[in-house]
Amino acid sequence: MSNRIVIALGGNALGSNLPEQMKAVKVTAKAIVDLIEDGHEVVICHGNGPQVGMIQNAMTELVRSDPSRYIPCPLSVCVAMSQGYIGYDLQNALREEMLDRGIDKGAATVLTQVEVDPADPAFQNPTKPIGAFMTEAEARRLEKERDYHVVEDAGRGWRRVVASPEPVGIVEIDTIRSLVNTDHVVVACGGGGIPVFKTEGNHLKGAAAVIDKDFAAAVLAKQLDADFLIILTAVEKVAIRFGKPDQRDLDRLTPEAARKYIADGEFAPGSMLPKVEAALSFATSAPGRKALITLLEKARDGIRGTTGTMVCGD
Amino acid sequence: MSNRIVIALGGNALGSNLPEQMKAVKVTAKAIVDLIEDGHEVVICHGNGPQVGMIQNAMTELVRSDPSRYIPCPLSVCVAMSQGYIGYDLQNALREEMLDRGIDKGAATVLTQVEVDPADPAFQNPTKPIGAFMTEAEARRLEKERDYHVVEDAGRGWRRVVASPEPVGIVEIDTIRSLVNTDHVVVACGGGGIPVFKTEGNHLKGAAAVIDKDFAAAVLAKQLDADFLIILTAVEKVAIRFGKPDQRDLDRLTPEAARKYIADGEFAPGSMLPKVEAALSFATSAPGRKALITLLEKARDGIRGTTGTMVCGD
Repeated sequence: MSNRIVIALGGNALGSNLPEQMKAVKVTAKAIVDLIEDGHEVVICHGNGPQVGMIQNAMTELVRSDPSRYIPCPLSVCVAMSQGYIGYDLQNALREEMLDRGIDKGAATVLTQVEVDPADPAFQNPTKPIGAFMTEAEARRLEKERDYHVVEDAGRGWRRVVASPEPVGIVEIDTIRSLVNTDHVVVACGGGGIPVFKTEGNHLKGAAAVIDKDFAAAVLAKQLDADFLIILTAVEKVAIRFGKPDQRDLDRLTPEAARKYIADGEFAPGSMLPKVEAALSFATSAPGRKALITLLEKARDGIRGTTGTMVCGD
Repeated sequence: MSNRIVIALGGNALGSNLPEQMKAVKVTAKAIVDLIEDGHEVVICHGNGPQVGMIQNAMTELVRSDPSRYIPCPLSVCVAMSQGYIGYDLQNALREEMLDRGIDKGAATVLTQVEVDPADPAFQNPTKPIGAFMTEAEARRLEKERDYHVVEDAGRGWRRVVASPEPVGIVEIDTIRSLVNTDHVVVACGGGGIPVFKTEGNHLKGAAAVIDKDFAAAVLAKQLDADFLIILTAVEKVAIRFGKPDQRDLDRLTPEAARKYIADGEFAPGSMLPKVEAALSFATSAPGRKALITLLEKARDGIRGTTGTMVCGD
């Protein structure tokens, strides 16, 4: 049975530097092509936290090296560059894996803008970590010198955080649809999409933000009328009482249960919480839609119904 | 009459930094949408000399700022990033201009790889200038410190040069064709395309090179079976005895005349010569194909036959 599937790739699907990325995308491509081999249409959305941070750091170092020649690069432009940086390796790995298996489909990256609301409260409250981990001293220096927002990230060190507004709609949705309909595996909404907001007339202006890729993938899946949204993460199943002796892994999550667990604080903000929220948002958006949360290497089994956590609609 | 047109945008269509680019693409979009308004299908290829040089400089400064954390970024990856950097502004300006005129078409950027031959002699003889102009002292320092090839560029200062191999074929040609056939204005082969060569199996490996955008556009026009290739440049017409008192502007250039003028050294290498060569290559590739060389703002008139230099097939 052929389904239309939107996949949101987690950070581990890409690695945190270029050699890691080139290796990671091969593994990622195998898992994705497994789904294509099963007859599904696949659209891929990926994160860009480490990459967009690295690119903006590079552009900042460039300005520092010669302030008379160069000017700072807006975050939205850095997101656009990160779509090129990641999409190139990802579409290549997909192309190669498909050819190796004798599958004749195109692999394409669509430079994608995603509309956000300038009144989104996220702009007043930056929460999305980007770039590499730092020491507290480094973080404090950047806070002072570059006016960055920095936070301590789950015991793993300090990171810069930027605004992460909600995605409202995908500007290039017709382009993505055209390519899916002409037998392409499409990489779209990379890094959650280039965040833009409407200004006067038909103009779109870049926003200083990075959109959460799971939420962008949920909007993409809705606008493409997908059957499944797969949110790949570092665990095979969503759990309640996570990390406690009485941890319970979930095979299936109804909207009522999901809402209750969210209210009970069962899912960590910035980690499992946005994934469950994105899954819920897609699964409840129309009858028959389902969202799967699992490991990359379990995606095929998850769609076949043998593992992962399936979030179902009302 | 509707024609399929591939346009190669010159450097002045983009400006040399981000504020210039945002302004320049508006003017560029108007000229391109003029053609769309006349009923033509348009695919756009653009250069990236200043931009890819800037991006690679940024990535180099990043490594210099923290060599323990970052590693150098291959030129092919910098080209991929430049496609995001430029395509974002260009597709946005096209989208806005079309909407302002009530034209309902998609504008899309396709991340494009272009195959080159690893045995291309260009790899032994770097000629393509990238990045900003420098003083001789700066150039000599980079030659020493980073093993760059540098040259003095037509009295305008010193620049880094990289290999510029001939494009052999466009990896994502089916993607571009699908989008043209579904009513899109497509930005493709940005910066001449991400240069790759085939290695073992189905693998494509990035090449340390920047492909000439006029040659890439010619290959793109052939593979799309276009009617016209438009090469935009800084003069309204190709001339012989250029800059001399007896300069003669050409309305039409037959293959015989073009070959004779090329042999006579009438066209400057790195300037008009590759444009005439690219035009000739397309115009002689199949019956009925024509190439126009003119100014951006004369493109519409040129296609209507009232100005520019039209290079015709045998």
